[in-house]
Amino acid sequence: MKFYDYFRSSAAFRVRIALNHKEIVPEREFIHLRRQEHRAPDYLKINPQGLVPAIVDDDGTVITQSMAIIEYLDETRPDMPPLMPDDARARARVRAIAQSIACEIHPLANLRVLQHLTNSLGIDETTRTEAWYHHWVATGLAGIEGLLDHPSTGKFSHGDSPTLVDVCLVPQIFNAKRVEADLNPYPTVMRIFDNCMQLPAFDAAQPSKQPDAEA
Amino acid sequence: MKFYDYFRSSAAFRVRIALNHKEIVPEREFIHLRRQEHRAPDYLKINPQGLVPAIVDDDGTVITQSMAIIEYLDETRPDMPPLMPDDARARARVRAIAQSIACEIHPLANLRVLQHLTNSLGIDETTRTEAWYHHWVATGLAGIEGLLDHPSTGKFSHGDSPTLVDVCLVPQIFNAKRVEADLNPYPTVMRIFDNCMQLPAFDAAQPSKQPDAEA
Repeated sequence: MKFYDYFRSSAAFRVRIALNHKEIVPEREFIHLRRQEHRAPDYLKINPQGLVPAIVDDDGTVITQSMAIIEYLDETRPDMPPLMPDDARARARVRAIAQSIACEIHPLANLRVLQHLTNSLGIDETTRTEAWYHHWVATGLAGIEGLLDHPSTGKFSHGDSPTLVDVCLVPQIFNAKRVEADLNPYPTVMRIFDNCMQLPAFDAAQPSKQPDAEA
Repeated sequence: MKFYDYFRSSAAFRVRIALNHKEIVPEREFIHLRRQEHRAPDYLKINPQGLVPAIVDDDGTVITQSMAIIEYLDETRPDMPPLMPDDARARARVRAIAQSIACEIHPLANLRVLQHLTNSLGIDETTRTEAWYHHWVATGLAGIEGLLDHPSTGKFSHGDSPTLVDVCLVPQIFNAKRVEADLNPYPTVMRIFDNCMQLPAFDAAQPSKQPDAEA
């Protein structure tokens, strides 16, 4: 399997966690987003969206979008510990909370959106961080904290082993810490974050531990 | 089943299509977003995120997030025509394209984000439409058009019957038309849109045909 990765991409960070959890060691290629390598013709042949991550499985199947990749890894490697529950209701809860992160928080705070706010809308950096980034982190995590106030929440977001939710949650918290968002209002989120970071699969996937990491 | 709906929500529009496709007739409650009904304490008990749509199945299970709801409906109603393919690779392709709409286009152009750009960042309406909304529709749909340039694309986005991709695509095109975005560069997207709109499940779900529709 080939994995197109970038240390700072939180969607790629999700996939790194899932690969570690499933004990898959792919061939990695690093696509440097700030150097525009995701817009290079060769990469656009792999992913016409020009986004990281992408994987190419051994049979040549290309899969894009982190949550789709993670469910694919889970479905095709059932011998390793699952990241999705067995029951349809539980799966729906896991997908819904993961999507609350991936569709409600992350898209508003990724690199290309922040760059567009500055370059095309003329938003200064302080406003961008405080009135935009912190606002969406706070709105989003307040919703997640509410969704986690539920009898199915355990040591992790759904039960006592990690799922797709935790795989999406941890990179989002790394981002929130990076912009110094206030995380005190979300004690359940942070308890689960701490539990995840005890696991080698999560710890080894963090941006600063990647071969392409920069200061 | 109870369904919390709003005619103008494109995430609710997705669920309306899926319900029609599965021939499920839920009890509907309309949550008027512009009147802030999604922030009412009773609704926040159903969905702590304060977002539409949500469903409550007959056993009391609450499910939020449109894509999670649609996969749940598909998994729990296997007797009706499927919206997800059988094969893991095909499912991954369908999820990836659906997520490309739901995670890359829709989150940047929904009501609360547009309101925040105006009210907190002071962006005027013309800039908001042209330099923001049109920009993200064009960036997103160019990527989707690229992903659809694939041998698995048929009469619909994946093969010759509608899937989760089409259910997400049609509401996004309705939104794009509403803000008069240029759709000429996306002939495959528009061919599939036209094919979808021939189907009663899609046609009957459109905003103007809902009981809570406003001019």
